[in-house]
Amino acid sequence: MVEEALTAERILEAAEEVLRRFGPAKATVVDVARALGVSHGSVYRHFPSKTALRDAVAERWLTRVSKPLAEVAAEKGPAPERLRRWLGLLFELKRKKARDEPELFATYTNLVADARDVVRVHVETLAMQVARILTDGVEQGEFTLDDPVTSAWAVFHATARFHNPIHASEWSDPGIDAAFEGVWSLLRGGLGAREAPAKVRTKPSKK
Amino acid sequence: MVEEALTAERILEAAEEVLRRFGPAKATVVDVARALGVSHGSVYRHFPSKTALRDAVAERWLTRVSKPLAEVAAEKGPAPERLRRWLGLLFELKRKKARDEPELFATYTNLVADARDVVRVHVETLAMQVARILTDGVEQGEFTLDDPVTSAWAVFHATARFHNPIHASEWSDPGIDAAFEGVWSLLRGGLGAREAPAKVRTKPSKK
Repeated sequence: MVEEALTAERILEAAEEVLRRFGPAKATVVDVARALGVSHGSVYRHFPSKTALRDAVAERWLTRVSKPLAEVAAEKGPAPERLRRWLGLLFELKRKKARDEPELFATYTNLVADARDVVRVHVETLAMQVARILTDGVEQGEFTLDDPVTSAWAVFHATARFHNPIHASEWSDPGIDAAFEGVWSLLRGGLGAREAPAKVRTKPSKK
Repeated sequence: MVEEALTAERILEAAEEVLRRFGPAKATVVDVARALGVSHGSVYRHFPSKTALRDAVAERWLTRVSKPLAEVAAEKGPAPERLRRWLGLLFELKRKKARDEPELFATYTNLVADARDVVRVHVETLAMQVARILTDGVEQGEFTLDDPVTSAWAVFHATARFHNPIHASEWSDPGIDAAFEGVWSLLRGGLGAREAPAKVRTKPSKK
């Protein structure tokens, strides 16, 4: 085995693997240390408690959702189309995880539910991404609304069925995509964008 | 004890009491029969299986929500205000049950989750009530939308956070009422009712 410096990143990778094997109830810091071939003291030098490690693992998992979404939020172009794509990507990222690795998804959902501060920051990050798109839309004359932050939260809450993991069992319903389109159409209208933008792009022209 | 005819209604009352005491996993038809002082054969004459009894209990519980809502849906008057009141009443009925009798609410939520056909009919009943209000609103020039049924489902899905029991733990959040108002404001706009109706009534003038 090649000796590697024990970084926070390596610990988090090992912790994910341990979680995958044992589940959040049974996984311990000792298991993580053992997987790395180090003492648990070495792990504690990076993460001072099991809670700190759990929160870091939860954050890493959630960042895999928030980071690609941040790219969409930061793009230029028509805001209604970007918001539609942002909401669709959020749904797709969550649904893909739930469908492809249902046990791991359930494991992380439980883990994340306990990391309340991490979740709060994550959800606020997402809402602020929406607010950014809405602000652009107002400036570009595409949305009509008073307060982008209030409207962003409303968009986020109104689409809970399509991103909150407690709805995961509904994500394979045959009517779920039509339901998403119905809600989106209603929201687009509610944001004052009653007409479809002149140039609808279903995919970004380059990535 | 006064002899009473064994009606379906009496059986359902007894079944509710048994559920309240034992929970849905442990309650049996024999317990219900015992509570009534009759043989379980007598119960089976009204409800041919435990599933049939469970479904009838679930339906009775759900009707306590759908019936007062039906009255709002059938009223005359400005449709946007009625829809606002209908959604508010749905949220309030559910939230009150969850808050006042949390254990019974959890019991029924589990019971109802298994009665899938009953739930499907209940949810369709609610969506059709919304569609009725939307249709009135279109006829009265208060809403602008193409298809009241599609829009009704969208309204129902977009407000899941405020009526789906899987969100019950969020119903005591301090920001939940503001969140409801935010979503309602967005939906009202999406239904083409961007201005508040001339005469807003927060309560029905008579009942």
